[in-house]
Amino acid sequence: MPLETAPGIDDIRAAWARIAAHVHRTPVLRSRTLDARSGAEVLLKCEHLQRTGAFKARGALNAVLSLPAAELAGGVATHSSGNHAAALALAASVRGVTARIVMPRTVPAVKQAAVQGYGGEIEFCEPTLAAREAGLRALVDRTGAAVVHPYDDWRVIAGQGTAVLELLEEHPGLEAIVTPLGGGGLLSGTAIAAKALRPAIRVIGVEPAGADDGARGFRSGIRVTGSRPDTIADGLRGELGERGFQVIRALVDDVFTVTDAAIIDAMRFTWERTKQLVEPSAATVIAALLDGRLQGLRVGAILSGGNCDLDDLPWRPR
Amino acid sequence: MPLETAPGIDDIRAAWARIAAHVHRTPVLRSRTLDARSGAEVLLKCEHLQRTGAFKARGALNAVLSLPAAELAGGVATHSSGNHAAALALAASVRGVTARIVMPRTVPAVKQAAVQGYGGEIEFCEPTLAAREAGLRALVDRTGAAVVHPYDDWRVIAGQGTAVLELLEEHPGLEAIVTPLGGGGLLSGTAIAAKALRPAIRVIGVEPAGADDGARGFRSGIRVTGSRPDTIADGLRGELGERGFQVIRALVDDVFTVTDAAIIDAMRFTWERTKQLVEPSAATVIAALLDGRLQGLRVGAILSGGNCDLDDLPWRPR
Repeated sequence: MPLETAPGIDDIRAAWARIAAHVHRTPVLRSRTLDARSGAEVLLKCEHLQRTGAFKARGALNAVLSLPAAELAGGVATHSSGNHAAALALAASVRGVTARIVMPRTVPAVKQAAVQGYGGEIEFCEPTLAAREAGLRALVDRTGAAVVHPYDDWRVIAGQGTAVLELLEEHPGLEAIVTPLGGGGLLSGTAIAAKALRPAIRVIGVEPAGADDGARGFRSGIRVTGSRPDTIADGLRGELGERGFQVIRALVDDVFTVTDAAIIDAMRFTWERTKQLVEPSAATVIAALLDGRLQGLRVGAILSGGNCDLDDLPWRPR
Repeated sequence: MPLETAPGIDDIRAAWARIAAHVHRTPVLRSRTLDARSGAEVLLKCEHLQRTGAFKARGALNAVLSLPAAELAGGVATHSSGNHAAALALAASVRGVTARIVMPRTVPAVKQAAVQGYGGEIEFCEPTLAAREAGLRALVDRTGAAVVHPYDDWRVIAGQGTAVLELLEEHPGLEAIVTPLGGGGLLSGTAIAAKALRPAIRVIGVEPAGADDGARGFRSGIRVTGSRPDTIADGLRGELGERGFQVIRALVDDVFTVTDAAIIDAMRFTWERTKQLVEPSAATVIAALLDGRLQGLRVGAILSGGNCDLDDLPWRPR
């Protein structure tokens, strides 16, 4: 049954029960060096070790497993250049239906292969939002596929909230939770779960300075649309959705921004010191930590994904 | 008390008790893709997540913690271009003494920084074995430091055996254990522990084809010396030591070799699919698995280390 209003903790618990057999309960890692450099006690929830290499598997699975069989006759569809594409392909494979993904031709081969590895079908389009939306409309008209939005969907948001549910079950003493902020699915699901389980906890989003529509909307109270993101964090270029915006305004304590230079430094730090291959979007939370912005706190940080193009690393040789 | 003869399982248990407060009990990870591609059920013992980024911390700590205070008056010393250097620096810091490391000037900055990060002192030398040995002799004459060999030392071998002790405690049903083979410390310590705990288990070493002195010695029964290693796996260029050779001949079931091309492919596979940043030496075991050489078995594979130079990755852009 699709959710008509914002999910509560019971919906997130129901999402967890729905998806648990199909996702990993990801490990929580620590790093002495990160603790020393950040002045915080940091627990890293490793969603880059999630199936498909990102937390997106949680939301896509919850959405697709929630759909009645009648709505799945035409399969599922979305447009995506990134982690939601593989997540939806995985979710469709679990239901035994086809996922059709409209994807810009410019997407790296490794991301195409991920979709195909789960049996998803790709329809290529030009790399513009207009072409992606037109491609998806045409595809839905032709196939009757059910569209699953990557973040502006309450079932997706409930699914993303399951990561912090696991984290707080294992580490109830956390004082703050920090997640990347792009479309708002992860941060809003996290905020709903965390504030329900532990009302005093601080929930903070981190956005690239070059894609700060979320931070600006959070401060002004008016959702920002139509801005032009310019950031290395390819997973955070989406615009904060209406549903996520509502939740974030109501429940989130702060939204930080970090520069691309800080993201790249944090990504390299994470690779070298924790040996965890995280993508730029995930490195935003490390950048905020290294900048000392959560000093003195016991912090849960969600490493959102690990899908990188190893042929195109962002740092220059030292 | 230094061991005069090969350690047994009791010595490895004693080593574990000695070092446990100073090392991580490293996690064990799994990968569906690795299982599918290898035809095996693989448990990855993550020693790249060990302190100093490699299993070497175990052996160095056991050796240094075993030394009587009187022998530590002049600190400890070694020559090393790699992971043993940082491991010895860590071990010395635990005892409150100085580690002095003779190191070729060509060692990447990140490995120098690791030694210095644990308070170790570096003495640079020319990048030849003769210069390294001469440098170490001069250093010992001057300081009276106790030399800790990176692998040809029974206390070091006992320490390295503690990784598989942890692994078999958690996963007693393993049918095979596979480790990289360089100087022989890890493989011999592993073999002693594994065969004592589970006599029917197969213990296998993997060597680069370009540094196959261990494989040749294993087959002929005569230890090979003076060969010239040529491999990307910088941690496995050392010559199989006398002590390791004895143990490996007695207890190890087979030694495989893998080409550098296979090592590079396996390293990239591991980065992309498990998001674990392993160094080329660790990728040797993945290469053997991907080649199907352990098909049908429940295998524990030791990911030996994760110290890479991110400015000098071995693959060419695809």
